[in-house]
Amino acid sequence: MKIYETKTAPNPRRVRMFLAEKGINVEYVQVDIQKGENLSAEMRAKNPLGKIPILELDDGTCIAETDAICTYFEALQPEPPLMGTTPVEKATISMWQRQVEFAFMMQIGMCFQHTTGYFKDRMTPVPEYGKEAGINATKYLNILERRLGVKEYIAGDTFSIADITALCAMDFARVVKIRMTDDHVNLARWYESVSNRASAKA
Amino acid sequence: MKIYETKTAPNPRRVRMFLAEKGINVEYVQVDIQKGENLSAEMRAKNPLGKIPILELDDGTCIAETDAICTYFEALQPEPPLMGTTPVEKATISMWQRQVEFAFMMQIGMCFQHTTGYFKDRMTPVPEYGKEAGINATKYLNILERRLGVKEYIAGDTFSIADITALCAMDFARVVKIRMTDDHVNLARWYESVSNRASAKA
Repeated sequence: MKIYETKTAPNPRRVRMFLAEKGINVEYVQVDIQKGENLSAEMRAKNPLGKIPILELDDGTCIAETDAICTYFEALQPEPPLMGTTPVEKATISMWQRQVEFAFMMQIGMCFQHTTGYFKDRMTPVPEYGKEAGINATKYLNILERRLGVKEYIAGDTFSIADITALCAMDFARVVKIRMTDDHVNLARWYESVSNRASAKA
Repeated sequence: MKIYETKTAPNPRRVRMFLAEKGINVEYVQVDIQKGENLSAEMRAKNPLGKIPILELDDGTCIAETDAICTYFEALQPEPPLMGTTPVEKATISMWQRQVEFAFMMQIGMCFQHTTGYFKDRMTPVPEYGKEAGINATKYLNILERRLGVKEYIAGDTFSIADITALCAMDFARVVKIRMTDDHVNLARWYESVSNRASAKA
Protein backbone atom coordinates (compact mmCIF):
# COMPACT_ATOMS: atom_id res chain seq x y z
CA MET A 1 0.00 0.00 0.00
CA LYS A 2 1.04 3.65 -0.39
CA ILE A 3 -0.17 7.09 0.56
CA TYR A 4 -0.18 10.03 -1.84
CA GLU A 5 0.49 13.19 0.14
CA THR A 6 2.18 16.57 0.33
CA LYS A 7 4.68 16.65 3.19
CA THR A 8 4.03 20.32 4.11
CA ALA A 9 0.20 20.23 4.09
CA PRO A 10 -1.74 19.87 7.36
CA ASN A 11 -4.03 16.93 6.49
CA PRO A 12 -1.22 14.55 5.46
CA ARG A 13 0.51 15.38 8.74
CA ARG A 14 -2.61 14.18 10.58
CA VAL A 15 -2.32 10.80 8.83
CA ARG A 16 1.44 10.50 9.47
CA MET A 17 0.97 11.34 13.14
CA PHE A 18 -1.89 8.83 13.47
CA LEU A 19 0.23 6.09 11.89
CA ALA A 20 3.25 7.00 14.04
CA GLU A 21 1.09 6.56 17.16
CA LYS A 22 0.11 3.10 15.86
CA GLY A 23 3.69 2.24 14.85
CA ILE A 24 2.63 1.57 11.24
CA ASN A 25 5.04 2.29 8.37
CA VAL A 26 3.65 3.07 4.90
CA GLU A 27 5.33 4.21 1.66
CA TYR A 28 4.62 7.87 0.86
CA VAL A 29 4.43 9.35 -2.64
CA GLN A 30 4.82 13.14 -2.83
CA VAL A 31 2.30 15.15 -4.88
CA ASP A 32 2.91 18.86 -5.57
CA ILE A 33 -0.46 20.49 -4.80
CA GLN A 34 0.80 24.01 -5.54
CA LYS A 35 1.56 22.93 -9.13
CA GLY A 36 -1.83 21.15 -9.21
CA GLU A 37 -0.45 17.61 -9.65
CA ASN A 38 -3.39 16.46 -7.51
CA LEU A 39 -5.82 17.65 -10.20
CA SER A 40 -4.52 15.35 -12.98
CA ALA A 41 -6.86 12.78 -14.55
CA GLU A 42 -4.76 10.04 -12.93
CA MET A 43 -5.20 11.52 -9.43
CA ARG A 44 -8.89 12.28 -9.98
CA ALA A 45 -9.39 8.62 -10.86
CA LYS A 46 -8.10 7.88 -7.33
CA ASN A 47 -10.17 10.67 -5.71
CA PRO A 48 -12.87 12.52 -7.67
CA LEU A 49 -12.41 15.62 -5.49
CA GLY A 50 -8.72 15.84 -6.49
CA LYS A 51 -7.48 16.19 -2.92
CA ILE A 52 -4.76 14.49 -0.89
CA PRO A 53 -4.00 12.46 1.18
CA ILE A 54 -5.11 9.27 -0.60
CA LEU A 55 -4.40 5.74 0.63
CA GLU A 56 -4.00 3.25 -2.23
CA LEU A 57 -4.22 -0.42 -1.27
CA ASP A 58 -2.35 -3.16 -3.14
CA ASP A 59 -5.52 -4.16 -5.03
CA GLY A 60 -5.91 -0.58 -6.31
CA THR A 61 -8.69 0.42 -3.89
CA CYS A 62 -8.32 4.10 -3.02
CA ILE A 63 -9.43 5.72 0.23
CA ALA A 64 -9.42 9.51 0.31
CA GLU A 65 -10.20 11.79 3.28
CA THR A 66 -7.91 11.93 6.29
CA ASP A 67 -10.50 10.63 8.73
CA ALA A 68 -11.46 7.73 6.43
CA ILE A 69 -7.80 6.70 6.09
CA CYS A 70 -7.48 6.77 9.88
CA THR A 71 -10.73 4.76 10.16
CA TYR A 72 -9.15 2.09 7.95
CA PHE A 73 -6.03 1.75 10.11
CA GLU A 74 -8.01 1.90 13.37
CA ALA A 75 -10.11 -1.05 12.17
CA LEU A 76 -7.05 -2.92 10.86
CA GLN A 77 -4.97 -2.40 13.99
CA PRO A 78 -7.10 -1.26 16.96
CA GLU A 79 -4.13 -0.83 19.35
CA PRO A 80 -3.44 1.74 20.66
CA PRO A 81 -7.03 2.98 20.25
CA LEU A 82 -7.20 6.54 18.92
CA MET A 83 -10.92 6.57 18.05
CA GLY A 84 -12.36 4.99 21.20
CA THR A 85 -13.48 1.50 22.17
CA THR A 86 -16.87 1.76 23.90
CA PRO A 87 -19.91 3.34 22.17
CA VAL A 88 -19.70 6.48 24.35
CA GLU A 89 -15.94 6.84 23.80
CA LYS A 90 -16.30 6.40 20.04
CA ALA A 91 -19.10 8.96 19.88
CA THR A 92 -17.33 11.48 22.15
CA ILE A 93 -14.11 11.29 20.14
CA SER A 94 -16.07 11.53 16.87
CA MET A 95 -17.88 14.62 18.18
CA TRP A 96 -14.69 16.45 19.15
CA GLN A 97 -12.87 15.33 16.02
CA ARG A 98 -15.65 16.81 13.88
CA GLN A 99 -16.01 20.00 15.87
CA VAL A 100 -12.25 20.61 15.75
CA GLU A 101 -12.36 19.92 12.01
CA PHE A 102 -15.40 22.04 11.12
CA ALA A 103 -15.19 24.90 13.60
CA PHE A 104 -11.39 25.21 13.72
CA MET A 105 -9.28 23.45 11.07
CA MET A 106 -11.64 24.08 8.18
CA GLN A 107 -12.08 27.72 9.21
CA ILE A 108 -8.29 28.11 9.22
CA GLY A 109 -8.15 26.50 5.78
CA MET A 110 -10.89 28.78 4.44
CA CYS A 111 -9.14 31.80 5.94
CA PHE A 112 -5.91 30.73 4.22
CA GLN A 113 -7.48 29.93 0.82
CA HIS A 114 -9.78 32.96 0.67
CA THR A 115 -7.43 35.63 2.04
CA THR A 116 -4.15 34.56 0.36
CA GLY A 117 -5.51 33.38 -3.00
CA TYR A 118 -3.05 30.43 -2.82
CA PHE A 119 -5.36 28.27 -4.96
CA LYS A 120 -6.84 31.07 -7.08
CA ASP A 121 -6.09 29.07 -10.26
CA ARG A 122 -8.73 26.53 -9.17
CA MET A 123 -11.24 28.43 -6.98
CA THR A 124 -12.70 31.91 -6.53
CA PRO A 125 -11.31 33.48 -3.34
CA VAL A 126 -13.77 35.69 -1.40
CA PRO A 127 -11.50 37.65 1.01
CA GLU A 128 -14.44 38.90 3.11
CA TYR A 129 -15.46 35.30 3.80
CA GLY A 130 -11.85 34.34 4.53
CA LYS A 131 -11.74 37.04 7.19
CA GLU A 132 -14.95 35.73 8.80
CA ALA A 133 -13.53 32.20 8.78
CA GLY A 134 -10.44 33.48 10.61
CA ILE A 135 -12.65 35.12 13.24
CA ASN A 136 -14.52 31.82 13.70
CA ALA A 137 -11.25 29.90 14.14
CA THR A 138 -9.96 32.43 16.68
CA LYS A 139 -13.18 32.10 18.72
CA TYR A 140 -12.80 28.33 18.79
CA LEU A 141 -9.52 28.68 20.71
CA ASN A 142 -11.67 29.76 23.69
CA ILE A 143 -13.81 26.61 23.46
CA LEU A 144 -10.63 24.50 23.46
CA GLU A 145 -9.29 26.51 26.42
CA ARG A 146 -12.42 25.80 28.49
CA ARG A 147 -12.45 22.13 27.53
CA LEU A 148 -8.79 21.66 28.43
CA GLY A 149 -9.47 23.29 31.79
CA VAL A 150 -11.58 20.24 32.73
CA LYS A 151 -10.01 17.43 30.66
CA GLU A 152 -6.40 16.47 30.02
CA TYR A 153 -7.02 15.83 26.33
CA ILE A 154 -9.63 17.20 23.96
CA ALA A 155 -11.97 14.21 23.91
CA GLY A 156 -11.36 13.22 27.54
CA ASP A 157 -8.70 11.58 29.71
CA THR A 158 -6.78 9.86 26.92
CA PHE A 159 -4.98 11.05 23.79
CA SER A 160 -7.10 10.61 20.65
CA ILE A 161 -7.39 11.49 16.97
CA ALA A 162 -9.05 14.78 18.02
CA ASP A 163 -5.76 15.89 19.63
CA ILE A 164 -3.90 15.10 16.40
CA THR A 165 -6.36 17.19 14.38
CA ALA A 166 -6.21 20.11 16.80
CA LEU A 167 -2.39 20.11 16.95
CA CYS A 168 -2.02 20.01 13.14
CA ALA A 169 -4.63 22.77 12.81
CA MET A 170 -2.91 24.97 15.41
CA ASP A 171 0.47 24.63 13.75
CA PHE A 172 -1.07 25.36 10.34
CA ALA A 173 -2.90 28.40 11.78
CA ARG A 174 0.43 30.25 12.01
CA VAL A 175 0.29 30.88 8.24
CA VAL A 176 -2.75 33.11 8.83
CA LYS A 177 -1.34 34.48 12.11
CA ILE A 178 -3.95 32.81 14.34
CA ARG A 179 -2.26 31.92 17.61
CA MET A 180 -2.93 31.31 21.31
CA THR A 181 -2.76 34.33 23.62
CA ASP A 182 -1.39 34.46 27.17
CA ASP A 183 -4.95 33.83 28.43
CA HIS A 184 -4.96 30.32 26.93
CA VAL A 185 -3.13 28.64 29.82
CA ASN A 186 -4.83 25.24 29.59
CA LEU A 187 -4.46 25.18 25.82
CA ALA A 188 -0.76 26.03 26.23
CA ARG A 189 -0.32 23.12 28.71
CA TRP A 190 -1.98 20.75 26.25
CA TYR A 191 -0.06 22.14 23.26
CA GLU A 192 3.28 21.60 25.02
CA SER A 193 2.28 18.04 25.93
CA VAL A 194 1.06 16.88 22.49
CA SER A 195 3.84 18.72 20.61
CA ASN A 196 6.38 16.71 22.60
CA ARG A 197 5.00 13.33 21.53
CA ALA A 198 7.38 11.54 19.16
CA SER A 199 4.54 11.24 16.63
CA ALA A 200 4.35 15.05 16.29
CA LYS A 201 7.59 14.93 14.29
CA ALA A 202 6.30 12.31 11.82
CA MET B 1 -32.12 9.14 26.49
CA LYS B 2 -33.43 11.94 24.31
CA ILE B 3 -32.46 13.87 21.19
CA TYR B 4 -32.75 17.65 20.91
CA GLU B 5 -33.60 18.53 17.34
CA THR B 6 -35.54 20.70 14.94
CA LYS B 7 -37.96 18.61 12.90
CA THR B 8 -37.57 20.66 9.68
CA ALA B 9 -33.75 20.92 9.64
CA PRO B 10 -31.68 18.56 7.44
CA ASN B 11 -29.20 17.21 10.02
CA PRO B 12 -31.85 15.98 12.50
CA ARG B 13 -33.53 14.20 9.59
CA ARG B 14 -30.29 12.29 8.98
CA VAL B 15 -30.35 11.03 12.58
CA ARG B 16 -34.06 10.10 12.43
CA MET B 17 -33.55 8.21 9.17
CA PHE B 18 -30.49 6.39 10.57
CA LEU B 19 -32.46 5.33 13.67
CA ALA B 20 -35.46 4.28 11.58
CA GLU B 21 -33.17 1.99 9.54
CA LYS B 22 -31.98 0.46 12.83
CA GLY B 23 -35.51 0.26 14.27
CA ILE B 24 -34.49 2.33 17.32
CA ASN B 25 -37.03 4.65 18.99
CA VAL B 26 -35.82 7.70 20.92
CA GLU B 27 -37.67 10.60 22.55
CA TYR B 28 -37.28 13.85 20.60
CA VAL B 29 -37.31 17.35 22.11
CA GLN B 30 -38.00 20.19 19.67
CA VAL B 31 -35.72 23.25 19.70
CA ASP B 32 -36.63 26.35 17.69
CA ILE B 33 -33.38 27.27 15.90
CA GLN B 34 -34.93 30.22 14.06
CA LYS B 35 -35.71 31.82 17.42
CA GLY B 36 -32.20 30.87 18.60
CA GLU B 37 -33.30 28.50 21.39
CA ASN B 38 -30.21 26.44 20.54
CA LEU B 39 -27.99 29.35 21.60
CA SER B 40 -29.17 29.48 25.24
CA ALA B 41 -26.69 28.86 28.07
CA GLU B 42 -28.53 25.61 28.84
CA MET B 43 -28.11 24.32 25.28
CA ARG B 44 -24.50 25.52 25.03
CA ALA B 45 -23.74 23.51 28.16
CA LYS B 46 -24.87 20.48 26.15
CA ASN B 47 -22.97 21.53 22.98
CA PRO B 48 -20.48 24.43 23.06
CA LEU B 49 -21.12 25.13 19.37
CA GLY B 50 -24.83 25.69 20.07
CA LYS B 51 -26.00 23.41 17.26
CA ILE B 52 -28.51 20.58 17.03
CA PRO B 53 -29.04 17.62 16.96
CA ILE B 54 -27.74 16.62 20.40
CA LEU B 55 -28.13 13.16 21.96
CA GLU B 56 -28.43 13.30 25.75
CA LEU B 57 -27.89 10.01 27.57
CA ASP B 58 -29.61 9.17 30.86
CA ASP B 59 -26.42 9.98 32.83
CA GLY B 60 -26.34 13.47 31.28
CA THR B 61 -23.56 12.75 28.76
CA CYS B 62 -24.21 14.78 25.61
CA ILE B 63 -23.14 13.82 22.11
CA ALA B 64 -23.43 16.50 19.44
CA GLU B 65 -22.74 16.18 15.69
CA THR B 66 -24.95 14.03 13.48
CA ASP B 67 -22.20 11.61 12.52
CA ALA B 68 -21.08 11.17 16.15
CA ILE B 69 -24.65 10.38 17.22
CA CYS B 70 -24.87 7.80 14.43
CA THR B 71 -21.47 6.41 15.49
CA TYR B 72 -22.90 5.87 18.98
CA PHE B 73 -25.91 3.90 17.76
CA GLU B 74 -23.87 1.93 15.21
CA ALA B 75 -21.57 0.78 18.05
CA LEU B 76 -24.51 0.10 20.38
CA GLN B 77 -26.52 -1.85 17.81
CA PRO B 78 -24.40 -2.88 14.81
CA GLU B 79 -27.32 -4.44 12.86
CA PRO B 80 -28.16 -3.54 10.17
CA PRO B 81 -24.69 -2.09 9.51
CA LEU B 82 -24.86 1.41 8.02
CA MET B 83 -21.18 2.31 8.52
CA GLY B 84 -19.52 -0.88 7.26
CA THR B 85 -18.11 -3.99 8.94
CA THR B 86 -14.67 -4.72 7.38
CA PRO B 87 -11.82 -2.14 7.47
CA VAL B 88 -12.21 -1.39 3.73
CA GLU B 89 -16.00 -1.04 4.00
CA LYS B 90 -15.73 1.24 7.03
CA ALA B 91 -13.14 3.41 5.29
CA THR B 92 -15.03 3.56 1.97
CA ILE B 93 -18.29 4.54 3.66
CA SER B 94 -16.46 7.11 5.82
CA MET B 95 -14.86 8.59 2.68
CA TRP B 96 -18.15 8.99 0.82
CA GLN B 97 -19.97 10.19 3.91
CA ARG B 98 -17.38 12.94 4.37
CA GLN B 99 -17.21 13.92 0.74
CA VAL B 100 -21.00 14.13 0.52
CA GLU B 101 -20.96 16.22 3.70
CA PHE B 102 -18.11 18.60 2.80
CA ALA B 103 -18.47 18.95 -0.95
CA PHE B 104 -22.27 18.80 -1.14
CA MET B 105 -24.32 19.18 2.05
CA MET B 106 -22.12 21.81 3.66
CA GLN B 107 -21.92 23.76 0.39
CA ILE B 108 -25.72 23.75 0.23
CA GLY B 109 -25.85 24.93 3.84
CA MET B 110 -23.34 27.71 3.18
CA CYS B 111 -25.27 28.74 0.05
CA PHE B 112 -28.45 28.89 2.14
CA GLN B 113 -26.93 30.76 5.10
CA HIS B 114 -24.88 33.23 3.06
CA THR B 115 -27.39 34.04 0.30
CA THR B 116 -30.60 34.17 2.37
CA GLY B 117 -29.28 35.73 5.58
CA TYR B 118 -31.49 33.28 7.53
CA PHE B 119 -29.10 33.38 10.53
CA LYS B 120 -27.90 36.96 10.09
CA ASP B 121 -28.61 37.64 13.80
CA ARG B 122 -25.73 35.26 14.66
CA MET B 123 -23.32 35.33 11.70
CA THR B 124 -22.11 37.65 8.93
CA PRO B 125 -23.53 36.49 5.58
CA VAL B 126 -21.19 36.93 2.59
CA PRO B 127 -23.52 36.53 -0.44
CA GLU B 128 -20.63 36.22 -2.93
CA TYR B 129 -19.31 33.22 -0.99
CA GLY B 130 -22.80 31.73 -0.75
CA LYS B 131 -23.04 31.86 -4.54
CA GLU B 132 -19.69 30.06 -4.90
CA ALA B 133 -20.84 27.41 -2.42
CA GLY B 134 -23.96 26.85 -4.53
CA ILE B 135 -21.80 26.39 -7.64
CA ASN B 136 -19.67 23.83 -5.76
CA ALA B 137 -22.76 21.88 -4.66
CA THR B 138 -24.17 21.87 -8.20
CA LYS B 139 -20.87 20.48 -9.57
CA TYR B 140 -20.95 17.67 -7.01
CA LEU B 141 -24.20 16.37 -8.54
CA ASN B 142 -22.05 15.27 -11.51
CA ILE B 143 -19.68 13.31 -9.24
CA LEU B 144 -22.69 11.54 -7.70
CA GLU B 145 -24.08 10.86 -11.20
CA ARG B 146 -20.85 9.17 -12.31
CA ARG B 147 -20.56 7.16 -9.10
CA LEU B 148 -24.16 5.93 -9.31
CA GLY B 149 -23.50 4.86 -12.89
CA VAL B 150 -21.14 2.17 -11.55
CA LYS B 151 -22.54 1.44 -8.08
CA GLU B 152 -26.09 0.90 -6.84
CA TYR B 153 -25.53 3.03 -3.74
CA ILE B 154 -23.09 5.85 -3.03
CA ALA B 155 -20.54 3.90 -1.01
CA GLY B 156 -20.96 0.62 -2.94
CA ASP B 157 -23.42 -2.23 -3.32
CA THR B 158 -25.28 -1.71 -0.07
CA PHE B 159 -27.26 1.15 1.46
CA SER B 160 -25.22 3.17 3.98
CA ILE B 161 -25.10 6.34 6.03
CA ALA B 162 -23.68 8.13 2.96
CA ASP B 163 -26.99 7.57 1.13
CA ILE B 164 -28.87 9.07 4.08
CA THR B 165 -26.65 12.16 4.03
CA ALA B 166 -26.96 12.60 0.27
CA LEU B 167 -30.76 12.20 0.30
CA CYS B 168 -31.24 14.71 3.13
CA ALA B 169 -28.86 17.13 1.39
CA MET B 170 -30.66 16.81 -1.94
CA ASP B 171 -34.05 17.44 -0.40
CA PHE B 172 -32.69 20.43 1.53
CA ALA B 173 -31.04 21.78 -1.67
CA ARG B 174 -34.49 22.70 -2.99
CA VAL B 175 -34.51 25.76 -0.70
CA VAL B 176 -31.65 27.20 -2.74
CA LYS B 177 -33.05 25.81 -6.03
CA ILE B 178 -30.26 23.29 -6.58
CA ARG B 179 -31.78 20.28 -8.30
CA MET B 180 -30.95 17.35 -10.58
CA THR B 181 -31.28 17.94 -14.32
CA ASP B 182 -32.55 15.48 -16.96
CA ASP B 183 -28.91 14.44 -17.54
CA HIS B 184 -28.68 12.93 -14.05
CA VAL B 185 -30.29 9.60 -14.94
CA ASN B 186 -28.35 7.43 -12.48
CA LEU B 187 -28.82 9.94 -9.70
CA ALA B 188 -32.56 10.00 -10.46
CA ARG B 189 -32.70 6.17 -10.26
CA TRP B 190 -30.93 6.25 -6.90
CA TYR B 191 -33.05 9.16 -5.61
CA GLU B 192 -36.28 7.31 -6.43
CA SER B 193 -34.99 4.18 -4.67
CA VAL B 194 -33.79 5.80 -1.42
CA SER B 195 -36.75 8.20 -1.22
CA ASN B 196 -39.05 5.20 -1.20
CA ARG B 197 -37.46 3.58 1.85
CA ALA B 198 -39.77 3.72 4.87
CA SER B 199 -37.00 5.49 6.83
CA ALA B 200 -37.10 8.47 4.45
CA LYS B 201 -40.39 9.50 6.10
CA ALA B 202 -38.96 9.41 9.64
